[in-house]
Amino acid sequence: MEPHEMMQKIVLDNWHTTLKRTNDLIDSLSDEQLMQEVAPKRNRGIYLLGHLTAVHDAMLPLLGLGEAHYPALLAPYVKEADSKQDYEQTPAQLRQYWKDVNASLNSKMAALTPADWLQRHTSVSAEDFAKEPHRNRLNVLVSRMLHLDNHRGQLVLLKGKDE
Amino acid sequence: MEPHEMMQKIVLDNWHTTLKRTNDLIDSLSDEQLMQEVAPKRNRGIYLLGHLTAVHDAMLPLLGLGEAHYPALLAPYVKEADSKQDYEQTPAQLRQYWKDVNASLNSKMAALTPADWLQRHTSVSAEDFAKEPHRNRLNVLVSRMLHLDNHRGQLVLLKGKDE
Repeated sequence: MEPHEMMQKIVLDNWHTTLKRTNDLIDSLSDEQLMQEVAPKRNRGIYLLGHLTAVHDAMLPLLGLGEAHYPALLAPYVKEADSKQDYEQTPAQLRQYWKDVNASLNSKMAALTPADWLQRHTSVSAEDFAKEPHRNRLNVLVSRMLHLDNHRGQLVLLKGKDE
Repeated sequence: MEPHEMMQKIVLDNWHTTLKRTNDLIDSLSDEQLMQEVAPKRNRGIYLLGHLTAVHDAMLPLLGLGEAHYPALLAPYVKEADSKQDYEQTPAQLRQYWKDVNASLNSKMAALTPADWLQRHTSVSAEDFAKEPHRNRLNVLVSRMLHLDNHRGQLVLLKGKDE
C-alpha cells in the first residue's frame, strides 16, 4: 500500500468508527431521552440529531457526490439553530433521515480514490483551489468527523437520564 | 506537494485547529467553572482537563517521542477515572501541565516526516505491525484528535455557568 493510500485508509477507518459509535449511542437513546437537554439550558438531543443530519446531508453536494436529500433541515437545524423551538420532524423521522443520509454518503465515498479525495470541494473555486490546495474533500471529511465526535460527546450525556 | 504530504498536512492542520479551539475554551473558563459538572452528575471540568492532559502526555511515549512528563496523572484521570474525588492538582497546576505537554508534543511532532508518521506506535510489536500496518503514529494522532474534540464538546457546556 502506498503512503497516500494508507493515510486515506486511516482517515476513512476513523470516520466509520466515529459514525458507528454515534449510531450505537443514538440507537441506545429513547425518543424521550432525545427530547431532553444535554445540560441545563443547552441543546436538546433532538436538535443535535437534526443538526448532524443536516450537516452530513450537506456533505453530499459539498463533496460533489450528489444533491442533499433533506435540504429543508438546514434552516431549522443549522442556520437558525434555535434549540428551544418545536420541530416539524419527529425523533423517528430524524432517526430515519440520519441513517439514510449516512448510507448514501458512505456508498458514494466508497467509490472515491485517494486522488479523488485531494480534489477540491465544491465551495472553493478552481482559482482559489490553485492557491489553497488543502481545501479539498479530505479536509471536509476530517473536519466533519471532528464535528461529529464533538456532538457525540454531548449526546452521551443523555444516557441514563430519567425518561 | 506529494499526495501523502498533503494528507499529512491536512491531519496536522486539523490537530492544531482542534487544540487551539480547546485552549481558547479552557482559557475562557474560570477555575470556579472548571470545578463544576458539565451536566448533572457528570464529569467536572477539572477532571476532563486532567484526563486530556494525561492522555496527551501518554502520547509522548506512544509516539516514541520521549517520556511522559506527568505519569502520575494516569491513575486518577484515566485508570481510576472517578470524577467525584478530590484531586491533588489545582486548576492552575493542570492548566500549566496541559500547556507544557502540548508544547512538548507539538515541538517533537514538527520534526516528523510523513514517512515517520506511518511508522508503528510503541504499543504494537514489530511482528504485529507487519500484519497491521495501519497501527501507526498517524492513527494515534487521528484518534486522539477525535478524543480531544469529543471532550471539548463537553467542556463548552461550562461556558456561561454561574461561578
